[in-house]
Amino acid sequence: MGVDMFQAIQEIRQALGEDGISTDNDDLKDHGYSEWSSINIDRLPTAVAYPKCTEEVAKIASICHKYKVPMIPYSGGSSVEGHLSASFGGVSIDFLNMKNIVAFHPEDMDIVVQPSVSWMDMNEKIQDSGLFFPVDPGPPAKIGGMIATNCSGTNAVRYGTMKDWVVNLTVVLSDGRIIKTRRRPRKSSAGYNLNGLFTGSEGTLGFITEATLKLAHIPEETGVAVTTFPTMRAAAKAATQVIHQGIPVGAVELLDNVQMGVINKMGGTGREWKKLPTLFFKFSGTKVGVDDNIQAVRRIVDQNGGSDFEFEQDKAKQATLWSARKEALWSMLCMRKSGNEVWSTDVAVPLSRVPDLVDISKRDLDDLGLFGSMLGHIGDGNFHETILFDGEREREKVSKAVHDMVHRALEMEGTCTGEHGIGLGKKEFLVEEVGENTLDIMKAIKASLDPHWLMNPGKVFDR
Amino acid sequence: MGVDMFQAIQEIRQALGEDGISTDNDDLKDHGYSEWSSINIDRLPTAVAYPKCTEEVAKIASICHKYKVPMIPYSGGSSVEGHLSASFGGVSIDFLNMKNIVAFHPEDMDIVVQPSVSWMDMNEKIQDSGLFFPVDPGPPAKIGGMIATNCSGTNAVRYGTMKDWVVNLTVVLSDGRIIKTRRRPRKSSAGYNLNGLFTGSEGTLGFITEATLKLAHIPEETGVAVTTFPTMRAAAKAATQVIHQGIPVGAVELLDNVQMGVINKMGGTGREWKKLPTLFFKFSGTKVGVDDNIQAVRRIVDQNGGSDFEFEQDKAKQATLWSARKEALWSMLCMRKSGNEVWSTDVAVPLSRVPDLVDISKRDLDDLGLFGSMLGHIGDGNFHETILFDGEREREKVSKAVHDMVHRALEMEGTCTGEHGIGLGKKEFLVEEVGENTLDIMKAIKASLDPHWLMNPGKVFDR
Repeated sequence: MGVDMFQAIQEIRQALGEDGISTDNDDLKDHGYSEWSSINIDRLPTAVAYPKCTEEVAKIASICHKYKVPMIPYSGGSSVEGHLSASFGGVSIDFLNMKNIVAFHPEDMDIVVQPSVSWMDMNEKIQDSGLFFPVDPGPPAKIGGMIATNCSGTNAVRYGTMKDWVVNLTVVLSDGRIIKTRRRPRKSSAGYNLNGLFTGSEGTLGFITEATLKLAHIPEETGVAVTTFPTMRAAAKAATQVIHQGIPVGAVELLDNVQMGVINKMGGTGREWKKLPTLFFKFSGTKVGVDDNIQAVRRIVDQNGGSDFEFEQDKAKQATLWSARKEALWSMLCMRKSGNEVWSTDVAVPLSRVPDLVDISKRDLDDLGLFGSMLGHIGDGNFHETILFDGEREREKVSKAVHDMVHRALEMEGTCTGEHGIGLGKKEFLVEEVGENTLDIMKAIKASLDPHWLMNPGKVFDR
Repeated sequence: MGVDMFQAIQEIRQALGEDGISTDNDDLKDHGYSEWSSINIDRLPTAVAYPKCTEEVAKIASICHKYKVPMIPYSGGSSVEGHLSASFGGVSIDFLNMKNIVAFHPEDMDIVVQPSVSWMDMNEKIQDSGLFFPVDPGPPAKIGGMIATNCSGTNAVRYGTMKDWVVNLTVVLSDGRIIKTRRRPRKSSAGYNLNGLFTGSEGTLGFITEATLKLAHIPEETGVAVTTFPTMRAAAKAATQVIHQGIPVGAVELLDNVQMGVINKMGGTGREWKKLPTLFFKFSGTKVGVDDNIQAVRRIVDQNGGSDFEFEQDKAKQATLWSARKEALWSMLCMRKSGNEVWSTDVAVPLSRVPDLVDISKRDLDDLGLFGSMLGHIGDGNFHETILFDGEREREKVSKAVHDMVHRALEMEGTCTGEHGIGLGKKEFLVEEVGENTLDIMKAIKASLDPHWLMNPGKVFDR
C-alpha cells in the first residue's frame, strides 16, 4: 500500500469512525470479485468504505481526491460486466448503510430513496398505495447500481428503462462537491438533462447518493401466457408480430430449449416443461383489455406454429406459470460444477432483426459445442446468452461466441449491450459501436467532471 | 462587420454556393426576431446559412470555428424563450433545406429524419402504416428544435416528452466534427447517454442534423370529453384525481375562463363555449377501454362539481369538441392589437401542488389587472400563462406576474420550465432552480464540447 493510500484510509477512518472503513481480506474479496461476472481481474480494492449519508460520501470523495485514490461504487454487486472491479485498486464505496426510503409521495406518484434500496423491497413496502416501480432487473439489484447501469428487465417493453423513471439525483462529484440535478417536477426542460447523463454512466462521472423516482399505477388486472414453438425463429417471429400489431403486452420473453431443460433439471417450478423454444407473456390493463389481448396473442401464436398455449388470470396460478421465467438465470447458475464459470452477456437490435439474430446465435452456440442458454426480452430486441464453461479450457471458445454475437448485433445496427452496460467487459465493443469521435466526446465529458479519472476508472473506456 | 465575420461569410459562400448564405436584411430579421417570443433583443445575426446536408453543416461549423464566429441553429422558429436570438451576432444556420424523411422502418417502429421535418407532416405521411409520432408541440415546430428544447405537448401525460423518443442523433460539433450518438436499437446501455444530453441542450452543445425517432401505434379507438367547473381549483382537483386513480387518459388539459372567452370572441370553433374553467380530455385504447375510461372520468368530474360533461367517440365530432383546445393559443394571438405584445411562459410542479399553483396564479393575474389566459397540461403538472400586454407600459407588471409564478413553482419543488426551455428568457431562474454547483457542471460540459462558446452562446446560462 502506497503512502497516499495509507493516508487516505487514515483520514476516512478519522472522518467516518472505525466502522466506516475496512481493510479486512474477506471484505476486499467480496467487493472486488463476483461470481456473477463474466469478467474478473486479479486486483482487489485496498479498502472498503461504508458511508451512512451523502455528506460522508462527499467526505470520502474529497479525501480520495486529495490523495488521488480511485473510488469504485458498490451497491447490489450483481453487475455482470465487472463494474465493481478495482482495476487500479483504491477504495470501494459500499452504500450498504444507505438503504432508506427518504420520502414517499403517493400524491405526486414519486419516491425518494437512498442507493442501496432494493427495488423489490421498495415495491413490497409501497404496494398498499396502488403504486409500484416498474423497472425489474435481477432480484439482487439496488437502485444506485440500477441507475448507474441504466438497467431494465422484463417490463421494459411496456414501461421503458431506468432513465425513463428518474426525476432527480443527488450526486457526489469526484472532488466531493454535492449536486442535485433537479427539483421534483415529473417533467422539465430546465437546463441540461443531467439525469439522462448520470443514468448509465456506470459510476464514472459521479456517485448517486439519493434519487427521486417516478412510480406507476399497479394495473387493475394482469395475466400470464406461455406457449412453445418448434424453432427459435418461429418463436421470435411470433413475438415481433405481437409488437407490430400493437398489442400492449406487459412483457414478452423468449427462452430456448436448453434453458427450459435446465429449469426442468433443477426442478424449482414444480412441473415439467417441454424442452422447446418457449414464449412467456405478461398482460396488464382492465379485465376486458387483458382478455382481449390474450386472445389476440393466441391468434398470432397459432399462425406461427406455436402450440401448448396456456394462460392464467388468477394471481397464484399466474405466478406458477411465470415461475420458469423467474427461475431461468438461477437454474443456470445452479448447474455450475466446481471449476465451472459463467459468462452472461446481452445485445439488442432493431425489432425486425430479432428472428435472424436469435436463429444464427443459437446455431453458433450449438456449432461450438458450448453449453449455453438463450433468453430474450424479445419485445424490445434485447436478448441474453448465458454460457457455462470449464474454466480456462473453454474460455477462448466462449469468448469467440460472445464476440460473434456482438458483431452480429452491431452489423444489424444494434448495440453491444441492451441493459448490462459496458463495465470492463465490453470496452472494445463500445468503440466499434459508436466510433472514435463519439467516444472522444464521452471522454471529454468524463474529463470535465472527473479530471483525474478517480471515479470507477477503467470502466466504459480507457483514458 | 468585423474582418473575421466577413472572411467566414466568404468561405461559407465558397463552400455552399451563392444560395448557401444570405445577408439580406429581411432574412436577418426573420431569423433574429420572433413575434412568438416573450423576449427579443436588438441584435440580429450577421448572416443566415442554408446547408443542404450534414457535411455542409460541418463545413459551416469548421469555418465558424476557425474565425470564432457564433452559430445559432434555426428550424421551426416557434421558440418562445428567444432561443433563435443572435445574442453575439454570428451566423444563423437555417435547416430549411434539410426536411427529408431519410428512412422509414415500420418493421422496426422507427423513422430517420432531417431537422426541418415537421412532426405534423411526418405523421400525415406515415399514417397508413398504423404508426405515429406522439410528441405534439405547437404546429410550426420542427424535429430539430423539438429535440433541442426537449419539447412536449398535450400527449406527454401518456407518451412522455421528446427525450423518450430519440433512438440516435447525428450531431455536428463546434469544430465541425460529426458524431452519431448510437446505432439503431430501441434500447441500449452502451456508454454515456448522449441522446439524453443533446436533447434539451438548446443547440449549445452541438447541432442535430439527423435523428432516428421511435414511433408508437395509432390507438384502435379514441375519444374526447369536455366539462366545465365553477373554479380553477375544482377543475385542477378533478384532473389530479383522474391521474391518481390511474385512468390512462391520452391528455388532460385545463383552460381558464379568459381563454374560453377569447376562443368565443375569435369564433374559430363554430360554437359558443361557457366562459368557465374547462377540462379537455383525450382517451385512447380499445373501444371497451375508452368507454370505461370516459365513464370513470365522468364520475370524478361529478364528484368535483363539474357540469356540462360532453363526450364524443366519432372522429369528426371529436375534432369539433377538441377544437377549442386546438384554437387556444392562436385565438390569443389573434387578439393582439397594434403595439400589443405577448408573453407566453410555462412552469411545472409535482402533481399534488397543481390545484394551489393554478388557483394562486389565476388570482395573481386578476389582481394585477392583466389580460392573460391560463392553459395547463395539467396531468403532468405543467401549465402556461399567455399574457397580452401594451408594450412598454405594462411590461414591468407582466414581468412581475411571470417572476411570481416561477418563484411559486420553485417553492413547490417545481421547475421554471416544463417544456419551453431556458433560452434567453429564463437564465436567472435556472440558477435559482438547480443551484450554482449544478450550473457549474452544466458549464463544464459545455466547455468540454464547445470550448470557445460558439454554439448558441448566451442561451441556457452565461459564460
